[in-house]
Amino acid sequence: MPADQINIALIGAGRIGRLHAENLAFRIPEANLAAVADIFQEAAQRAADAFRIPLAVEDYHDLLKRDDIDAVIVCSATDTHAQIVEEAAAAGKHVFCEKPIDHDLKKIDQALVAVTAAGVKLQVGFNRRFDPNFKRVHDLVAEGRIGEPRLLHITSHDPEPPPIDYIKVSGGIFLDMTIHDFDMARYLMGCEVEEVFVAGGIMVDPAIGAAGDVDTTLTVLRFENGAIGTIANCREARYGYDQRVELLGSLGNVSASNNYPNSVTVMDANAVQRSKPLYFFLERYAESFLLEMRDFVDAVLTDRQPLVTGTDGRMPVVMGLAAWQSYRENRPVKLSEVG
Amino acid sequence: MPADQINIALIGAGRIGRLHAENLAFRIPEANLAAVADIFQEAAQRAADAFRIPLAVEDYHDLLKRDDIDAVIVCSATDTHAQIVEEAAAAGKHVFCEKPIDHDLKKIDQALVAVTAAGVKLQVGFNRRFDPNFKRVHDLVAEGRIGEPRLLHITSHDPEPPPIDYIKVSGGIFLDMTIHDFDMARYLMGCEVEEVFVAGGIMVDPAIGAAGDVDTTLTVLRFENGAIGTIANCREARYGYDQRVELLGSLGNVSASNNYPNSVTVMDANAVQRSKPLYFFLERYAESFLLEMRDFVDAVLTDRQPLVTGTDGRMPVVMGLAAWQSYRENRPVKLSEVG
Amino acid sequence: MPADQINIALIGAGRIGRLHAENLAFRIPEANLAAVADIFQEAAQRAADAFRIPLAVEDYHDLLKRDDIDAVIVCSATDTHAQIVEEAAAAGKHVFCEKPIDHDLKKIDQALVAVTAAGVKLQVGFNRRFDPNFKRVHDLVAEGRIGEPRLLHITSHDPEPPPIDYIKVSGGIFLDMTIHDFDMARYLMGCEVEEVFVAGGIMVDPAIGAAGDVDTTLTVLRFENGAIGTIANCREARYGYDQRVELLGSLGNVSASNNYPNSVTVMDANAVQRSKPLYFFLERYAESFLLEMRDFVDAVLTDRQPLVTGTDGRMPVVMGLAAWQSYRENRPVKLSEVG
Amino acid sequence: MPADQINIALIGAGRIGRLHAENLAFRIPEANLAAVADIFQEAAQRAADAFRIPLAVEDYHDLLKRDDIDAVIVCSATDTHAQIVEEAAAAGKHVFCEKPIDHDLKKIDQALVAVTAAGVKLQVGFNRRFDPNFKRVHDLVAEGRIGEPRLLHITSHDPEPPPIDYIKVSGGIFLDMTIHDFDMARYLMGCEVEEVFVAGGIMVDPAIGAAGDVDTTLTVLRFENGAIGTIANCREARYGYDQRVELLGSLGNVSASNNYPNSVTVMDANAVQRSKPLYFFLERYAESFLLEMRDFVDAVLTDRQPLVTGTDGRMPVVMGLAAWQSYRENRPVKLSEVG
Repeated sequence: MPADQINIALIGAGRIGRLHAENLAFRIPEANLAAVADIFQEAAQRAADAFRIPLAVEDYHDLLKRDDIDAVIVCSATDTHAQIVEEAAAAGKHVFCEKPIDHDLKKIDQALVAVTAAGVKLQVGFNRRFDPNFKRVHDLVAEGRIGEPRLLHITSHDPEPPPIDYIKVSGGIFLDMTIHDFDMARYLMGCEVEEVFVAGGIMVDPAIGAAGDVDTTLTVLRFENGAIGTIANCREARYGYDQRVELLGSLGNVSASNNYPNSVTVMDANAVQRSKPLYFFLERYAESFLLEMRDFVDAVLTDRQPLVTGTDGRMPVVMGLAAWQSYRENRPVKLSEVG
Repeated sequence: MPADQINIALIGAGRIGRLHAENLAFRIPEANLAAVADIFQEAAQRAADAFRIPLAVEDYHDLLKRDDIDAVIVCSATDTHAQIVEEAAAAGKHVFCEKPIDHDLKKIDQALVAVTAAGVKLQVGFNRRFDPNFKRVHDLVAEGRIGEPRLLHITSHDPEPPPIDYIKVSGGIFLDMTIHDFDMARYLMGCEVEEVFVAGGIMVDPAIGAAGDVDTTLTVLRFENGAIGTIANCREARYGYDQRVELLGSLGNVSASNNYPNSVTVMDANAVQRSKPLYFFLERYAESFLLEMRDFVDAVLTDRQPLVTGTDGRMPVVMGLAAWQSYRENRPVKLSEVG
Repeated sequence: MPADQINIALIGAGRIGRLHAENLAFRIPEANLAAVADIFQEAAQRAADAFRIPLAVEDYHDLLKRDDIDAVIVCSATDTHAQIVEEAAAAGKHVFCEKPIDHDLKKIDQALVAVTAAGVKLQVGFNRRFDPNFKRVHDLVAEGRIGEPRLLHITSHDPEPPPIDYIKVSGGIFLDMTIHDFDMARYLMGCEVEEVFVAGGIMVDPAIGAAGDVDTTLTVLRFENGAIGTIANCREARYGYDQRVELLGSLGNVSASNNYPNSVTVMDANAVQRSKPLYFFLERYAESFLLEMRDFVDAVLTDRQPLVTGTDGRMPVVMGLAAWQSYRENRPVKLSEVG
Repeated sequence: MPADQINIALIGAGRIGRLHAENLAFRIPEANLAAVADIFQEAAQRAADAFRIPLAVEDYHDLLKRDDIDAVIVCSATDTHAQIVEEAAAAGKHVFCEKPIDHDLKKIDQALVAVTAAGVKLQVGFNRRFDPNFKRVHDLVAEGRIGEPRLLHITSHDPEPPPIDYIKVSGGIFLDMTIHDFDMARYLMGCEVEEVFVAGGIMVDPAIGAAGDVDTTLTVLRFENGAIGTIANCREARYGYDQRVELLGSLGNVSASNNYPNSVTVMDANAVQRSKPLYFFLERYAESFLLEMRDFVDAVLTDRQPLVTGTDGRMPVVMGLAAWQSYRENRPVKLSEVG
């Protein structure tokens, strides 16, 4: 591998794949986006055209075989993640994998074993760790600025629910939406969760319930360090993407509020107004998507551990499974009961 | 009773009693603060001097006998509340009683029966309902401004824990501190709670644990209308009294933030800064204490139901007892299990 | 005079007089509001009834003659202020006088001479100095928190213009409205102004222009300490009373924003909203009116200089006259040209 | 010229030149950064290496001669701008020119004549028009959201003064720093300024005064539409780059506050704190620099007028010259006196 640039192949050219491709192609000089694979050749070709990628194929195996590919970005359907991670690792490629690795802990563990055996890097796409707001909260907590953590509160609402067809294959709210907040909780607190309790309901759309999912939840977390916390999730917030955290500690309180498209305030005969928060994750987390990909490229180039590891990919799935069990049985569930 | 003024006696001239006395004496022209009783004659006399009260006695029974007293303000020790309410009602006096009426549901019910039998007014001192912030949230929710309620979050931290001697007789955090938030939850949501779940711990001071109490808690509430909510409580917040609420509904989100002593911001080479929130309840809720007393006087004068009724005094005690049971058994507890 | 209470007479029972009367009667135990005079006996009597004042007269001379009056509160028509101050001082009464003392510097000087000769206290009603926001800015500046002052900006808009009949006798915007900001500029900066320049226009209502006044102005101030500043004034701000200050210094920036009726924020599909600022001076400055009167009573009781002196009453009139000259001649005018 | 991409040459590879080069090279697919010229060959070569520019020369004339260059970005020393614009126009190249075109109105006019004669596009680098905050204010004003404009206030402070050597050749504060605010005033108000008045002083560093410049100024503007405004400028603000605007109109008030590196708030025993504003223009206006360059490329590709024209480049220089005259003569100066 050249000392200052790596050759990267994108696997899966859907929405999130194209987002990573654009960052890799136009904003990260150390990355050479050399190839793209998608089970729809047309999608692969469209991405190749848009992001000046020289090679577009249908079958990602064709890319894993190539010696001139150093790393792969796995953005295919969730149920293919674990297998591709395993195969890519076996082929000696470093891997960036979108979350979740899988919903099945056995498959995840098998993929992580393959990664360890191959000695390649694996970074999981928990991009919010790279968001300047949440990173600042994390750093202040880690520096002891608020003393010993006591009470965490994460607010994380989507502007509107996804299509029911998506809901059906999503793994449910805890593995699809809360999973990001599970990661955030571990990241901010700097320790593991021992037990979860969930209260939830179907308040947004009965069709979500009919699909076996819930749309509004409160998850209580007990951490190993003795602190406790809650995650509030709703699939619908009419004012946009609501993404905030707050942590009370023995010396003070740190919080991150939403991001807005501008800082403009209007005062008139009715009210004092400002624009709604940024609408959804593509706008809100644009910077964090770029920063996580920069970090991945840097981790490969400098041969260091990525900031989001395979274990960081596994634990939120454990939490999500425990959350489902708590919801169904209406009782606190220890993570050790699940895996 | 004169058409435009009522004669009021204060029972209990401690901190909160003096606060009500000052409002009644100097800021509510419709109230004539005619007498004060305190088991310490000296305390009664000091209040009489400070607030120009013509009569100061040791035994409140002396006041209940008088025909020229229309109403009493009960600010004595908690374990005397229920009995005084009962006696005052029997004597035909309207009653304002500080929270909680009692920790024992039987005693509360007996007092409420006496009030009903006598046909007098009873208002319980949940002053926060009169706070302009929380009242505004309540009104917006009641008007349907945010649609159907879904997720409530109440943040309610004290600046520092009370003395251990107080903790020991307080009934514990749920009946002493969270009780205000239980009332707030019912007030904002406009319906009853069915089930509570508590996670808590001793994070502030081991002596609080040694006294049989906890100091940091998260309480999950399920409401009859299907909504869910959390209350976060800590006995210590180094930056002052932290009193906020937030409610997500189907059409939007409404929240109340803290109050500050001034609106001044300083920007220097280190940071952008403003003063801490108002320190504690005497400052933070000064206006609500005045407004609740005005409302009580008005309710008596206009012969209407007070805004905080006997039932409003009883239900938070039920919730507090259920919260203790949930904490001890680490499981959700239905209010119907308790009372 | 009793050591802990003073007897006060109110002269002028209009809107501002009644406001002071209410504070003196119900919120300042050290004040005994003993008498009220108004050229309309009915107005005097109404105030007496509302604020429990034992004596109500038409002619204030009847009050100046009484030995049992220690101080007077002058809230009569502006063109009577100077003469009443002079007479009250001659009668040995301490004086609180609403702003402005007069629009004529000779009359002001004559009144101030009388006050000095009599050795009584004189406080002028620049209540905004007692506002917690502006006092905090003042104190931070005085403590050196922002270093050497450089640039001041005062924003001061009324919600709506007064009646044209009032405009005609008001002395014009600079002596009626900006005069408060002239005082604020001196108060915050801690030094005198040397020169003013005014740009202004008639933007709100041509009738204001027809009455010889302007309704929208920018006033540039050069201070003796070398700093410069601006005052922005408009007779109409549709969102309410807009009262802010900001001061840049060598070490930082301090600013005070508006006050709001509550801290509630609503987010919905349209915007993030909060209530408009407090509507007008009665609400916005309620606390400062109380605090200035407390301070006056305290100054008399403890025999100290009031915080707003006769000179503090005179200088803003000088600045207002200079501002008028600058506006008319479209050039910077030194205060020494005026008086 | 290809329908969907233009070939661009950079002239001047200093700080601002490199900023534009990075945007053109990595973030604007429609731009092909084909060449760079700098009088220091080494600087040209460094930029070529960093931004993958195939051709690096010393003499920009070598680039103007080439048929395969469609447009030039002029980032050389200010005193060379006008001549390069003239030559580039004569060579048929579209021109993006950093502000100011020149300090001499004759040279500016000569350059503008050449541009018009050649029929090429000219965009001047007033990037702040593309800032999302200020653009939002502009759009709201233009839509009539605040009614008729009355009072404008622009706050624009640098974090620290530039080196004295830079000050000496800068044209002074009005042509170097305020010039951006003059453009902003015209942009937001949508009309021209008729008269300026300046108060200023040397408060930051006597060496700035010794160099013939001032460092702290208030500029009063009278607009053709009857509105008035102020610009506050200081070469030093210890808390960072302070860039705000506010406009009061007949229906309300619109304002833009600063941008911050994150939305995090810390509350502790001392204060409520957040990070300082973004430090300086490279961070604060990063997005606007990208957007202005995108707009230039789009204007050339779609054959439309740029959003910042030659006249927009000329008028702020007129205003700066009038400001200097006002400062020196301490009187209001009409723009018609200057040019």
